[in-house]
Amino acid sequence: MSDVMKFEATTVETMEADTNRLHETAVKVGVDTWQDRVANQTPHCGFGEKGICCRICTMGPCRITPKSPKGICGATADTIAGRNYLRMAAAGAAAHSDHGRECVWKLYDASPDGNFHITDETKLLKLAEEWGVETEGRDIYEVGREVATLGLGEYGKITGTSRMISRANPERIRCWEENDLLPRAIDREVVTALHMTHVGCTADPVALVHAALKVGMADGWGGSMAGTEFSDIVYGTPMPKETEGNLGVLEKEYVNVICHGHDPAVAEMIVNASESPELISLAKEQGAKGINIVGLCCVANEMAMRHGIRMVGNYLQQENAILTGVVDAIVVDLQCIFPNIGPVSECFHTKFYTTSPIAQIPYSTYLPVTSANGGEVGYRIVKEAILNFKNRDEGKIFIPEHKRKAAIGYSCEGIKSRLDAVTNSHVDEELDTYKPLIDCVKAGVIRGAAAFVGCNNPKVRPDYSHIEIMKKLIANDIVVVATGCAAQAASKAGLLEKDAKFLCGEGLKRVCTLADIPPVLHMGSCVDISRMMLLATGIAKDWGIDVPQVPVVGCAPEWMSEKAVAIANYVVATGIDTYLGVYPQVQGSDKMMELITEGTRAMTGGGYYFYTNPDDLVNAIINGIEAKRAALGI
Amino acid sequence: MSDVMKFEATTVETMEADTNRLHETAVKVGVDTWQDRVANQTPHCGFGEKGICCRICTMGPCRITPKSPKGICGATADTIAGRNYLRMAAAGAAAHSDHGRECVWKLYDASPDGNFHITDETKLLKLAEEWGVETEGRDIYEVGREVATLGLGEYGKITGTSRMISRANPERIRCWEENDLLPRAIDREVVTALHMTHVGCTADPVALVHAALKVGMADGWGGSMAGTEFSDIVYGTPMPKETEGNLGVLEKEYVNVICHGHDPAVAEMIVNASESPELISLAKEQGAKGINIVGLCCVANEMAMRHGIRMVGNYLQQENAILTGVVDAIVVDLQCIFPNIGPVSECFHTKFYTTSPIAQIPYSTYLPVTSANGGEVGYRIVKEAILNFKNRDEGKIFIPEHKRKAAIGYSCEGIKSRLDAVTNSHVDEELDTYKPLIDCVKAGVIRGAAAFVGCNNPKVRPDYSHIEIMKKLIANDIVVVATGCAAQAASKAGLLEKDAKFLCGEGLKRVCTLADIPPVLHMGSCVDISRMMLLATGIAKDWGIDVPQVPVVGCAPEWMSEKAVAIANYVVATGIDTYLGVYPQVQGSDKMMELITEGTRAMTGGGYYFYTNPDDLVNAIINGIEAKRAALGI
Repeated sequence: MSDVMKFEATTVETMEADTNRLHETAVKVGVDTWQDRVANQTPHCGFGEKGICCRICTMGPCRITPKSPKGICGATADTIAGRNYLRMAAAGAAAHSDHGRECVWKLYDASPDGNFHITDETKLLKLAEEWGVETEGRDIYEVGREVATLGLGEYGKITGTSRMISRANPERIRCWEENDLLPRAIDREVVTALHMTHVGCTADPVALVHAALKVGMADGWGGSMAGTEFSDIVYGTPMPKETEGNLGVLEKEYVNVICHGHDPAVAEMIVNASESPELISLAKEQGAKGINIVGLCCVANEMAMRHGIRMVGNYLQQENAILTGVVDAIVVDLQCIFPNIGPVSECFHTKFYTTSPIAQIPYSTYLPVTSANGGEVGYRIVKEAILNFKNRDEGKIFIPEHKRKAAIGYSCEGIKSRLDAVTNSHVDEELDTYKPLIDCVKAGVIRGAAAFVGCNNPKVRPDYSHIEIMKKLIANDIVVVATGCAAQAASKAGLLEKDAKFLCGEGLKRVCTLADIPPVLHMGSCVDISRMMLLATGIAKDWGIDVPQVPVVGCAPEWMSEKAVAIANYVVATGIDTYLGVYPQVQGSDKMMELITEGTRAMTGGGYYFYTNPDDLVNAIINGIEAKRAALGI
Repeated sequence: MSDVMKFEATTVETMEADTNRLHETAVKVGVDTWQDRVANQTPHCGFGEKGICCRICTMGPCRITPKSPKGICGATADTIAGRNYLRMAAAGAAAHSDHGRECVWKLYDASPDGNFHITDETKLLKLAEEWGVETEGRDIYEVGREVATLGLGEYGKITGTSRMISRANPERIRCWEENDLLPRAIDREVVTALHMTHVGCTADPVALVHAALKVGMADGWGGSMAGTEFSDIVYGTPMPKETEGNLGVLEKEYVNVICHGHDPAVAEMIVNASESPELISLAKEQGAKGINIVGLCCVANEMAMRHGIRMVGNYLQQENAILTGVVDAIVVDLQCIFPNIGPVSECFHTKFYTTSPIAQIPYSTYLPVTSANGGEVGYRIVKEAILNFKNRDEGKIFIPEHKRKAAIGYSCEGIKSRLDAVTNSHVDEELDTYKPLIDCVKAGVIRGAAAFVGCNNPKVRPDYSHIEIMKKLIANDIVVVATGCAAQAASKAGLLEKDAKFLCGEGLKRVCTLADIPPVLHMGSCVDISRMMLLATGIAKDWGIDVPQVPVVGCAPEWMSEKAVAIANYVVATGIDTYLGVYPQVQGSDKMMELITEGTRAMTGGGYYFYTNPDDLVNAIINGIEAKRAALGI
């Protein structure tokens, strides 16, 4: 533990200066970046932004105006905005959950001598027990295949609801039963949402918002949770460790390979290949000091949490990374890949690989990765990157120096391990419980927790909201857990350093010291928001209250993707108020605005709050948490 | 057979005059109809119309212009139009297939003393044999449940491709294998399409068009085909019979109940209830002569084909029907229901019932129908309609007099039954074959066939394209098969009358006379386009050629729904050129336009042709069919 009393976070201004410097390179090589495209696309279409543009059939498109209050079929603003909103939730759930399915397949395909293995046997055995799979005296890979088969069945089973639901607290399950929110097969809920929004189907916004909650549930307590669980089994459950984050992790004298996307599979293959003595020798032969694998976007979170792999940046840094001129290969799997990675790479020596049929992108070399060929493809890509090292153009190279250390790996298991370490000093305390944390909250040492999720979005000042809101929350003794691009924003600012405790209020600072944790806990990638649901559930259970009573909130100040809509829906369905800094595209309907705020709150105990100003957003969170405390009488 | 030499089709002008007269009523009662809304919504947004508006994430919406050639993520016009197109196909496949799933459930739930029964045992036994289900000595309902379980499994099975594929001819199956077009579980293909189109996933229009074909295949050779097969088993396979069509089927002195939507289940319950002596007595007590059940939209096609129930109109007539003032109840299931049915009904005594969670609509009484409560709900609705008879406002009543007779019920089995009747006169001919039809085509007596599908769309002059193109085709000895709103347009014009043969060329006229059929064969609802695929496949098999060689084309001159996009994709994947009168929203991308025309043709043998002018469209079809004949040397 450090003795420093003063802690300097890296400012957004510093990050912006790096981005501006790299933009000069973009101008020089003649390629556009998101900043240019935002300028070109502003102002946005007001109809689309408000959700009152309908493109669901070819009688239209239709737009709602005071003079034309209905589409050709008679759909009102409420119907159009509601349908668009449900479609976003459905597409987000489809994406998240389909990524989860790939993780389940990796367990199914795992074998001791194959490309994918069972890494966390304990977690597998726990899940096997949960799902009633016999484990006694059986080969662990046989158990794995049976559990994976049940996991795959969750996507298309004919009857029944999500198996993971049984993890929730009884009050939640009752709420979901009473409100018809128990999700059926994951794929079916997505199809139902699309069917409901087809021309001439559901027009009632109440039913559309309800369906959005339900398809969200299929994601959060189905597909996303599968993504987390099965990734942990195959690649290992994250535990606390150290890494670094920001563009400064690129190394001029090393072969740099960026893994970008969401599914850990391909990145694991790349990491394996980079450890091959043969390839390390080859890199040295080519004049490099070695091979530097770094992650970008959520795959960075996955790799950092499990291997300490360094994180080069979040969503809006993907072009920046290539603009440094030292990226010898960028290999992507799926989701959040700018199609512009192609044109930017073309301006450099950078090789651009796509690896999934789900994300086929022009100007890339397409090498679809399977369980069978993964090792081979990983080796080929790293080898080609090494051989590409010599092709760099010195005149185009600029690597920003900024990077920060980061303590990461706070899965639920990781958090409990820290709590256990604390309570171990009191011999009579029980282990594997959130009770020490709950005691801190009850005592007011920690006021509550805020779960940060989601993307960057140029609609707000990128990273600024994440960082400034987190800083004020920890200063107010509200602990932050973060995933996805929010977690990486924290990493770039240094908020994942343990010394960031010096930005905290006295209470949280003491807890950070005692538990040896940073005040912002990195919980993983965006499928790992399921970890946050389990954390909130675990706290509620150990406390003996329902989730909506726990002083915990969700926050997505810069969200942009449809996955975020799915996430927001399952977070709200789980009973957690969610504070958003970007409006979903429904503002053209007062009814929809009411339904997604007070409407869901009346049903599940959770709803949205909107504040586009980060100061207002953070103040609202603090007030929200204090109100929950007051209701509990603490 | 009639001796009349002159045949007068009802003109579109006549239909429009009725619509205009009913619009006067709308003005009087103070409600808008689609004509008003089209006026308000014109001109449409050019970005949306061309497919170059992206609302897939909240960084946007983005629009492609010469000054802003990329969205914020870097998506080009090709990517944006391609993603929008794939999403339309996915939503259409979801809707169609989910309707199919409900039909499978009805077989699963069927019981001798329940609301739903097994009506066509032969068809069930044939399917059981096809799927390897033991039938020997088993109770037919037990067989039904096992076949239904396999059918439900098609939606979510973990591995394997569509069972129905085995019905295709070997050349087609090879084409699909070679081009990765064999669909996996139906719901999974929909989810895959949504995932591919999520922000940061597939940007390559080639892959997006390929995925549209594949999700289309999951519909046409999966969900839609299930819809047809299982409906036939539960409700009976259509065979030739007579009915009537157009608004004139409403009866002033009867209790009128309209069934509107697509899934036959609810309409079957309404028909059953209307046959109850108790309710017939009640109707008479209330001063009515009886109960008149009529169908609207595709449920009309379903009920007409199986029970001879009369068809009150197609998609754009749904408001018209209520505007007659004599509709005592309108009961809807799902798809293509104008939300404006609510406000229009509110201006009359008409009771408006919604019955499916998939289509929840404001201003309706929501009575969700299940296998268990169907009979009860049907009885309740008919009873309430009867009691509502007295509430009509005489001052608002006007029923257009026009209606035409229609010979319908031409399922594949129905068509073969007619062909068998012809060949029966030659004792040495084999039965249950399309050979007599093929001989006619080879001989040039019939030049070929055109399969008409799809909707009405105010973007063209409603019904005009359907009717005028059909008239010219039959005059050129091209037989027409029709489903959906296209079939009803033919019905309103009288083209389903057997005497419509007098509009035909000499060859087709002779065939119509010999086989005692009309020149436009009504094949059912829009899921029944799967019947057309089986017809084309059967002809190809009996001929010994591949589907793209057969002189048959698809035609959707007035399509509007996403289902139509799914349909068009599976028709094209099946190797059938498809002539469209409305552009899909991709015209902003030259690449997409090329891919959906020549691109797919190079892969599957089928592609789109576009002609917004009906004269050009019909001439292109005739030329296309003659070119296929020339290639066959006939």
